[in-house]
Amino acid sequence: MASTPHTQDSPGISALKAALPAKAWTQDPDIIAPHLTEWRDKYFGQTPILLTPGTTDDVATAVKICAEHKMPIVPQGGNTGLVGGQTPQGEVLLSLKRMTRVRDVNPIANAMTVEAGATLHAVHEAADAADRKFPLTLSSQGSCTVGGVLSTNAGGNHVLKYGTTKELVFGVEAVLPDGQIFNGLTSLRKDNTGYDLSRMFLGAEGTLGIITAATLKLFPKPSYIARVMMGIASVEDAVALLTRLSGPSLAMFEVMPHIGFAAVVDNIENERDPFSEPHPWYVLTDFEVATAEAGEALVTALLEDAFAAGLVRDAVLAQSDTQFLAMGSIREHMSAGQKFLGGSIKQDITVPINHIPEFFAKADAAVQSIVPGCRPVGFGHFGDGNIHYNIAQPDSDDMAANRDAFLARWDDISEAVFDIVDALGGSISAEHGIGIMKRDTLATRADPVKMALLRRVKTAMDPDGIMNPRVMV
Amino acid sequence: MASTPHTQDSPGISALKAALPAKAWTQDPDIIAPHLTEWRDKYFGQTPILLTPGTTDDVATAVKICAEHKMPIVPQGGNTGLVGGQTPQGEVLLSLKRMTRVRDVNPIANAMTVEAGATLHAVHEAADAADRKFPLTLSSQGSCTVGGVLSTNAGGNHVLKYGTTKELVFGVEAVLPDGQIFNGLTSLRKDNTGYDLSRMFLGAEGTLGIITAATLKLFPKPSYIARVMMGIASVEDAVALLTRLSGPSLAMFEVMPHIGFAAVVDNIENERDPFSEPHPWYVLTDFEVATAEAGEALVTALLEDAFAAGLVRDAVLAQSDTQFLAMGSIREHMSAGQKFLGGSIKQDITVPINHIPEFFAKADAAVQSIVPGCRPVGFGHFGDGNIHYNIAQPDSDDMAANRDAFLARWDDISEAVFDIVDALGGSISAEHGIGIMKRDTLATRADPVKMALLRRVKTAMDPDGIMNPRVMV
Repeated sequence: MASTPHTQDSPGISALKAALPAKAWTQDPDIIAPHLTEWRDKYFGQTPILLTPGTTDDVATAVKICAEHKMPIVPQGGNTGLVGGQTPQGEVLLSLKRMTRVRDVNPIANAMTVEAGATLHAVHEAADAADRKFPLTLSSQGSCTVGGVLSTNAGGNHVLKYGTTKELVFGVEAVLPDGQIFNGLTSLRKDNTGYDLSRMFLGAEGTLGIITAATLKLFPKPSYIARVMMGIASVEDAVALLTRLSGPSLAMFEVMPHIGFAAVVDNIENERDPFSEPHPWYVLTDFEVATAEAGEALVTALLEDAFAAGLVRDAVLAQSDTQFLAMGSIREHMSAGQKFLGGSIKQDITVPINHIPEFFAKADAAVQSIVPGCRPVGFGHFGDGNIHYNIAQPDSDDMAANRDAFLARWDDISEAVFDIVDALGGSISAEHGIGIMKRDTLATRADPVKMALLRRVKTAMDPDGIMNPRVMV
Repeated sequence: MASTPHTQDSPGISALKAALPAKAWTQDPDIIAPHLTEWRDKYFGQTPILLTPGTTDDVATAVKICAEHKMPIVPQGGNTGLVGGQTPQGEVLLSLKRMTRVRDVNPIANAMTVEAGATLHAVHEAADAADRKFPLTLSSQGSCTVGGVLSTNAGGNHVLKYGTTKELVFGVEAVLPDGQIFNGLTSLRKDNTGYDLSRMFLGAEGTLGIITAATLKLFPKPSYIARVMMGIASVEDAVALLTRLSGPSLAMFEVMPHIGFAAVVDNIENERDPFSEPHPWYVLTDFEVATAEAGEALVTALLEDAFAAGLVRDAVLAQSDTQFLAMGSIREHMSAGQKFLGGSIKQDITVPINHIPEFFAKADAAVQSIVPGCRPVGFGHFGDGNIHYNIAQPDSDDMAANRDAFLARWDDISEAVFDIVDALGGSISAEHGIGIMKRDTLATRADPVKMALLRRVKTAMDPDGIMNPRVMV
């Protein structure tokens, strides 16, 4: 195993400083500071040195030295992770932020090769310039990076049509824990020459190596997107509606409960309710179609059917770019809106889509029995079964005073929710990953055969435990 | 490493016979015989026993005994593999043919769980009954099995839209080399709880464990498929045309040269040329659309554009199911048609799509310089860069007499083609896999870092080398 954290002037740290260009490292606490906290203020870190290599060769040099000195490394992308996987506790911190180059865009092969430090937003812009689409969208896309979204297998709103990040990657370039460079960059859709090694790094949270670049899959741009927001009565109706709307054009199916929807439109500037009266639940859908006319025809037919089946109370089709963006904005602000509901205990889980109603029935009852009066705000990606099941503290005259006592129940509520998720065949981490936050939970709850395999892979790839050693396995 | 092949009455074989139900094994040579040859008559095998377990538990029991006695195992699906991966040479032969159950079809989650011995055709029928589509289609679909297509990561005609088999799987159940059962069956689209272990078994050709069941991804059925066949002038025009036709509806882009097309329509019963005059190359495309009218409108617009650009000489839109099937039948019979051209040296390669013209220019020259007068028949999945680059023997008055001398140049021609493929960043095995046939080639040509990683994974998962030990790595 890797040795304990090294000090600022240990031989290993000195070797790094001697081997790397001056721009590729710093020990300046002011420069390092923002890399040691994250936006939820849950994790605070420390490191003897921040490495900022500009090339894959510099990453390889750095990792080789760390391996020789058995110094553990924490890789960091845009520092937007939600489970503490990017925060060092004495390890060497390696940020990919200077490796931002788009190496190649190939619209014929529908492929783009880009370095790990490029933001998701930069990927969108490069794809757009080639008249192509990269379908992953996240609220953090201005900050989060390719290396981070690949390492955490980020999800988002379009998974029901395009899959999670790992489905959007042809291959990666990665520096292995011994400093060797694995080159899996390719735009080949068919290549049956061995195990899918690139895939091992996707969702591995930096525990098997450091992704330095990737070839991403691009898609033809849909010519038109028809966006519809619907007011509906219940979670059961949401699932029934999903089945009716399902088809090759359906690219998004997001659901929000009234309490979360109201927290946005009532509190956040420029947000407004597109409906004339409140509804228990809201659904936001996108249909990728050839033309505005085709979209209107498709949506009209689908809605007629859904109204006839009693599944929809009201519906609005976006008629302009402004309306399109306004509808999306409500969904994007769901997390921000919940800050107006006080303390929030957050869960990121998946259940099989057909079990969503049963999940809500059981989970709502379970959390109420732990904290009577607490307010579940389960929203998100029903189209792929992923629910951000957040629980707001009970309404009271003194929310601020009661906040900490409520948040102290985090683990109790998590365990109750995870029990239900496990019983339904779901996942305790849908898209945020394991990191530090859920490492113990995974070790306790995962099938022992799976857990043993995870550890066998980790040991085979990183026998000295250099790579992000406190994370995941 | 595993010990040398066991005899019919070794203690290990006796232990298998004692532990398994009578239906789960045989030593009857007549029953075993068809499992020891394959349809191209390139590989002939031998085995002390054929196991035919009916349940995952029986597979686990068998593998555990084999592990204890260090007896190597060759798993076999429908025995349609093309690279010798399924043919035992003294190993225990384990056929999944009795495990054919469709365990669950879930149209809401777009998922189906099916056992490894079910045929691809049975999967299509079960999906169809639930009004869903499983997009993998292969000429061998009546015989090939789920376990086989997953283990070889089969490709086919619709990869440009749907990906290869490994993109069509949620997770697998597999028996590990020590006999433990890994349960990765899930219909969850988002599950970030560790490395993608199920993925390791996909394309692994049975070298890491035995897939016993899988949860497959289903898709909404396209309401209508518009099929168009085009006559075009050149490979360059094929690639230019692919770029123009590319879009969310394009689901197939197959190309055939005149020599291969003519071999089908001139020689095979009921096949006919839909064009009034010959063309140098032919393209077969599918567009998945909402209605026949939408398809006709889309195809008309695309063809007007393509004719105006001088990329298409003639085009036919299928106007009936009969025409639809007749066009597809020509493509399906490309392999059969080539039997009328004499001996054939077959290559299954991928190059980046934009390099397809360069590949043909260089490969045609290279093979001509090895065997003057030989006739390249490069056809297949240009939409994903995969070319079945077959070379027919030179035309002569005595084809049969010259056949063996021509086929003796197989390795020379392969090496010349692989050199070109490697220089273009392609793959020497697109969809058929490595097996026995390309094992040495892979070891020689693969990046040493990749090769070392493949072996590290193999050793970590199967330290005694029990699983399909002569294959791939």
